[in-house]
Amino acid sequence: MLVLKNRILAEGRNLGKGILKVDSFINHQVDPMLMMAVGEELARRFAQARATKVLTAEISGIAPALMTALALKLPVVYARKSRPITMPQGAYTQEAPSHTKGKVVELIVSPEYLSAADRVLVVDDFLATGQTIAALIKIVERANATLVGVGAVIEKSFEGGRAGLVGCGVPVETLVQIIDMSDGRIVFAD
Amino acid sequence: MLVLKNRILAEGRNLGKGILKVDSFINHQVDPMLMMAVGEELARRFAQARATKVLTAEISGIAPALMTALALKLPVVYARKSRPITMPQGAYTQEAPSHTKGKVVELIVSPEYLSAADRVLVVDDFLATGQTIAALIKIVERANATLVGVGAVIEKSFEGGRAGLVGCGVPVETLVQIIDMSDGRIVFAD
Repeated sequence: MLVLKNRILAEGRNLGKGILKVDSFINHQVDPMLMMAVGEELARRFAQARATKVLTAEISGIAPALMTALALKLPVVYARKSRPITMPQGAYTQEAPSHTKGKVVELIVSPEYLSAADRVLVVDDFLATGQTIAALIKIVERANATLVGVGAVIEKSFEGGRAGLVGCGVPVETLVQIIDMSDGRIVFAD
Repeated sequence: MLVLKNRILAEGRNLGKGILKVDSFINHQVDPMLMMAVGEELARRFAQARATKVLTAEISGIAPALMTALALKLPVVYARKSRPITMPQGAYTQEAPSHTKGKVVELIVSPEYLSAADRVLVVDDFLATGQTIAALIKIVERANATLVGVGAVIEKSFEGGRAGLVGCGVPVETLVQIIDMSDGRIVFAD
């Protein structure tokens, strides 16, 4: 996705240790027009998946997942990282390590909004080690729902997350792939 | 906003103590089409405000603020509640009490994305006691930016938040106003 690649080249910052700062347009300040284009592109790639629901994790997954769900005309569920007082017992929970927070967080989804009848498209901002996405997939399994695809905005291929998702047997689509961030570079796959 | 009022009547739950459960369409599961309509209506009401930026607080403010910003073709900034490793020093911070978490949280905005040149529209999901919105306004002031308006999706008038915002001297727009939630009821202003 050229517009996204160009934006990363213009505004992304390689902070070292594989950390890509994109908080001027994705995860602190958000460019809604870019995010709409991202959502439309992910929706296009999964147009045949017959999803009934988009699932993401708060916080930075919300914007791209919301726009993907808008384009697909589907509800979007974001897994909570703390249990709100409005959530009933019996929630699906799954631990996932958070890189940016340096600790393990719990992802929590109410059974009210994910059921065996659902065909679920998982969307997140990054596919890096894949551990957040793997946790979301475990929640889909726990709900006896059907996973139909995984989409992410930016893939850090050098962190190997895609390999861990092969066993899911669903299409994995990412809009740009970064293959190298060593020595301050940001190198794309193509 | 009739479509929103009807949705609250159909799916909202009065959990007592002024807590309105709307997590089937606003803040766990989100209806993107409804949120788009919400964003377009808030954008219409602030069309003359000449805002340069929309400001909200993670987590549940993100969806309505993103859609408002999309309709206004502006960037949206969401205040973080924990400092990501990508954020530089010198951030604007302001404490705000969180009702649903029962504790004080810190709202954090990077000075990279809010400056004296900005005209800021603050958007959140709820206007209740107004303390989250007041904290966002303090961050606007700290950045020497200009507050041009405050918008919220649902106002719980009986919690009195609007009175505390009068001193700001900007328009405060909410899309539905709930005046009473005693005895299990959900009573709208009109």
